[in-house]
Amino acid sequence: MTLELTAVPNNKGVDAAVAAARRVIETLLHAGDNSAAEMSDVADRLNAVADHLEDHVPTVQQRLVDMWAGEGVTRHDPVTGPENAIAPPLHLIGQENGSIEARVTLGLAYQGPPGCVHGGVSALLLDHTLGVANHWAGDSGMTGTLTLRYHRPTPLFEELTISARQESVDGRKIRTLGTISVGGEVCVSADGLFINTHLPRPQ
Amino acid sequence: MTLELTAVPNNKGVDAAVAAARRVIETLLHAGDNSAAEMSDVADRLNAVADHLEDHVPTVQQRLVDMWAGEGVTRHDPVTGPENAIAPPLHLIGQENGSIEARVTLGLAYQGPPGCVHGGVSALLLDHTLGVANHWAGDSGMTGTLTLRYHRPTPLFEELTISARQESVDGRKIRTLGTISVGGEVCVSADGLFINTHLPRPQ
Repeated sequence: MTLELTAVPNNKGVDAAVAAARRVIETLLHAGDNSAAEMSDVADRLNAVADHLEDHVPTVQQRLVDMWAGEGVTRHDPVTGPENAIAPPLHLIGQENGSIEARVTLGLAYQGPPGCVHGGVSALLLDHTLGVANHWAGDSGMTGTLTLRYHRPTPLFEELTISARQESVDGRKIRTLGTISVGGEVCVSADGLFINTHLPRPQ
Repeated sequence: MTLELTAVPNNKGVDAAVAAARRVIETLLHAGDNSAAEMSDVADRLNAVADHLEDHVPTVQQRLVDMWAGEGVTRHDPVTGPENAIAPPLHLIGQENGSIEARVTLGLAYQGPPGCVHGGVSALLLDHTLGVANHWAGDSGMTGTLTLRYHRPTPLFEELTISARQESVDGRKIRTLGTISVGGEVCVSADGLFINTHLPRPQ
């Protein structure tokens, strides 16, 4: 038995608009400073969308309350959130053996060294995945210390496997390990110490 | 004397379109699943922009060559890049004392715990800042090991100071330290070991 641990995007509502925004982010990077693309017209069209949305937003405080209502998975985080265009997004699946896993292929928006994933992006994806692995195992908390080791460059445009597993719980201290690999070879490994504490939800 | 170490966004061309895309990312998150905002129409408008841009992009290989041409600062990375809508972006300034620094205020797109910056986003910003600190000091390379310590939650919507400095160089090993702080209090500290090696530029 496996279980979806992260929000599943649907094809309508804000998720569809966010999926389109991801295409905009990636195609802007791909286009670069390309006069044939009439960038000032593109800027006007995007600003018009932002203006329209700003006319329909709640206060930030109200939005924070809504975001954190209920006990479900988050829909807004920058790693798995279908409502966050920064997120690739990762779809993390809980495995019967206690580990969790996602497969993802990253494009130009996540580039560090030429043609490779930014080391800090790998850190972002792993920090979040370790946190979700803790939820899957039962005891979760906030990151205390996170150590990343970079074994080889992580390629863009190839399917990566991101996995994590809770190793141990000792009182409030939780230790969790994870990796990003490609074709069975580990690119980045993470070793996290989490503290079993949570910030209050906005209300 | 101080020096801008990262690309300065201009108000035209792709930078203006990317700045507008950042507004779209943030307002989509702020709006949430809000039927009054007519999200399917928003999705259509954003997909139309992406379709238009896709008609004007070079091949990925050509774009990679262009991105990495010249010896200047990158314009496309996910931390400082004015051409990357994922980047806040950070404007890193080199200080006469050898350290570098940026001030930035982060919004909903970078949220982890309620009202706070995602721990993995802090890792992303610090990894990149440590790398730029190495360029400022003279010897630079790729991240080998990065350790993040989380001292207190990092708030959204407040001005953060991100700073870094190269500590030592021992052969090909470079050690670099950095922090994210708010109001003089350290939220996250980073300790990085970099290896003086670089991937070849695409050509």
